[in-house]
Amino acid sequence: MAQLIRTHDKALRTRAEKVVPSGMWGHLHAAKLPGNYPQFFSRGEAGRIWDVDGNEYIDFMCSWGPNLVGHKNPEVEEAAERQRLMGDCLNGPGEVMVELAERLVDMVGHADWALFQKNGTDATTTCVTIARAATGKRKILVAKGAYHGAVPWCSPSLVGVTAEDRAHLLYYTFNDVESLEAAVKAAGDDLAGIIVSAFRHDFSFDQEMPTPEFARAARRIADAASAPLIIDEVRAGFRLHVAGSWEPLGVRPDLSAWSKAIANGYALSAVTGRDWLRKAASEIYATGSFWAGAVPMAAAVATLKIVERDSVPERIAYLGQLLRDGLETRSRQFGLSIRQTGPAQMPTVLFDDDADFAKGTAFCDAALANGVYFHPKHNMFLCSGHTEADIEQALAASEHGFAAAARAT
Amino acid sequence: MAQLIRTHDKALRTRAEKVVPSGMWGHLHAAKLPGNYPQFFSRGEAGRIWDVDGNEYIDFMCSWGPNLVGHKNPEVEEAAERQRLMGDCLNGPGEVMVELAERLVDMVGHADWALFQKNGTDATTTCVTIARAATGKRKILVAKGAYHGAVPWCSPSLVGVTAEDRAHLLYYTFNDVESLEAAVKAAGDDLAGIIVSAFRHDFSFDQEMPTPEFARAARRIADAASAPLIIDEVRAGFRLHVAGSWEPLGVRPDLSAWSKAIANGYALSAVTGRDWLRKAASEIYATGSFWAGAVPMAAAVATLKIVERDSVPERIAYLGQLLRDGLETRSRQFGLSIRQTGPAQMPTVLFDDDADFAKGTAFCDAALANGVYFHPKHNMFLCSGHTEADIEQALAASEHGFAAAARAT
Repeated sequence: MAQLIRTHDKALRTRAEKVVPSGMWGHLHAAKLPGNYPQFFSRGEAGRIWDVDGNEYIDFMCSWGPNLVGHKNPEVEEAAERQRLMGDCLNGPGEVMVELAERLVDMVGHADWALFQKNGTDATTTCVTIARAATGKRKILVAKGAYHGAVPWCSPSLVGVTAEDRAHLLYYTFNDVESLEAAVKAAGDDLAGIIVSAFRHDFSFDQEMPTPEFARAARRIADAASAPLIIDEVRAGFRLHVAGSWEPLGVRPDLSAWSKAIANGYALSAVTGRDWLRKAASEIYATGSFWAGAVPMAAAVATLKIVERDSVPERIAYLGQLLRDGLETRSRQFGLSIRQTGPAQMPTVLFDDDADFAKGTAFCDAALANGVYFHPKHNMFLCSGHTEADIEQALAASEHGFAAAARAT
Repeated sequence: MAQLIRTHDKALRTRAEKVVPSGMWGHLHAAKLPGNYPQFFSRGEAGRIWDVDGNEYIDFMCSWGPNLVGHKNPEVEEAAERQRLMGDCLNGPGEVMVELAERLVDMVGHADWALFQKNGTDATTTCVTIARAATGKRKILVAKGAYHGAVPWCSPSLVGVTAEDRAHLLYYTFNDVESLEAAVKAAGDDLAGIIVSAFRHDFSFDQEMPTPEFARAARRIADAASAPLIIDEVRAGFRLHVAGSWEPLGVRPDLSAWSKAIANGYALSAVTGRDWLRKAASEIYATGSFWAGAVPMAAAVATLKIVERDSVPERIAYLGQLLRDGLETRSRQFGLSIRQTGPAQMPTVLFDDDADFAKGTAFCDAALANGVYFHPKHNMFLCSGHTEADIEQALAASEHGFAAAARAT
């Protein structure tokens, strides 16, 4: 196996340990990855990244979602640069805010309006607040194990969280209509809204697309209660469908939370909603120092233009399917059985008989040493910066991964 | 009075009304300002801004804080550009995260470590979560009327907020030691922390600097309870003192929340803390899609370098005092009595006998028509992009404002 140089990364980790709690925080902490993964990165181009030691990788995490049309996409960078030369963070928004809101209303099936923020968590939290404001009710239905952000009401960790932070959450099981109905019953006459991920993409589990029955039931139940159906599109948004991830199901939400890919890596999130929630959206108080920043909005207008014009969801579904087919064939050649779940644009690859993730870890570590950045437990991401040649090269590297996984058996 | 052209702004407002709830949201909504204020901006240079109709203003809101060393400060822009050509949002932070954390630990009196986020609200919320994680307690003491962000636990509005979101807040009065002691008593053995703004900068009230007695009492009470003292530096940070706003008082907090000016308008916030909270900070879960973005961090390193090297707090205190002295003299010439409160770097100007803000409104509207952007109720901001000539020009324009205010009597 190729030996990756990690001198600079190691030196930075030592320095970081002193001035950052445990050297890093959150989902980008390398401690959660196999031991050979780098913590620090220096560069990105299209579908490739370089760590601080100069090692190059074909990247299937895409910054955990934000990179959708390729790092340093020339059209996005040009739009951002043009806005930057004018102004970014001023005493109010630029003309580009109106252009971006108009584009979302035009593109997104259910959207009659939009507002803009910075984090995905801002958007999910604002959806919940709008739902409560509009209904005057309190209970929010959340799928067990779903990730909707990293503040006390929804964080995957309970450290520093009080019971009251989640006092009005009720839980159902994704794709389980009965459990949804039971949760609605438990909410009684206090149902404020239902929040659901675009698809089930829980960490370290097989992914599940929503069934049409489940999607329709969620819509029907929300309508019956006059409570908004909220789709959390933060992770999936603009990768599966330009008009919203549930469009192919024929089910439209009342509110959606968007972030990650919306501006191809520039910090931006958005809430879109239907007309009946416009008043509530204007009555709640949500704001942030940088939320009117014009540069990320210019990047978003350019990104969404590319997504529509180039049919990016279809393109990355094609690339993802190439990867998926190639991994399937190769896993069999090595006598291994893998489960590839979720949409081809956001694949999760898990090994059978691998409760301790030893095979997945060995696979990813060996692929990394051969220039491909996979993730052993989390869903991955394709971007339109990837090429057929990248997929081919990644598949060749995957053979080292499968060989290592077979040895880890 | 000069007549400002508002054709383009009006057209954009009409378009925005259709696709954004009430046309804009949050603190940058022009509906909260006198009628002549623009909603949309196109450009910023040093201490000046231009609206979308090309009207130019000397700007004393500085994007409500973020603009500290002047729009498009060449050193900041060059550092950001250098990082941008490498990469921004990747699968982990860049080397610049370590540099920035080291700089904060070096500069900020109490800081043993730092972590980075996007919104001021991210930072205040994380401070509260760390406090609860470290102590295993729940009650947070908050000053009545203080602004600590715009999510349900701290939002100035209760629309869409449930009682449980604030179940563990107890209130005291800023600068009132007795009220703080009473709140501590009410917390019993469940005190998790005390949060306090760097100074009292409540909307539409005279500002108050903390008294040494109050600051020392807060420190003593926090120590006695082994609960962190948290300073919310989001608004004041790096404008009053490079090492923290309470350094001149000789009182250091355990945690501080920073944002706004930290990267001169690039979206960034930070939490700094003392060693005893390092473990809790690494145990809570806080993360965001763009929190490791390297470009805002590069901008922050450059901004903080300038702040220290050029003694920016002292420079803008000098400019703010020029403005304050000039406004005082001129208000008297017009037979008006004004109250100028808070630090010279972040002045609030309120008129006596002006319960309905008619004088303040007339003053600001006339100043605006003469090329100066003041705020009638909120604290304002100086930046080192301002020059003595800007202050002189602003004072000349203020005479139109005072004349209008005198007529509004």
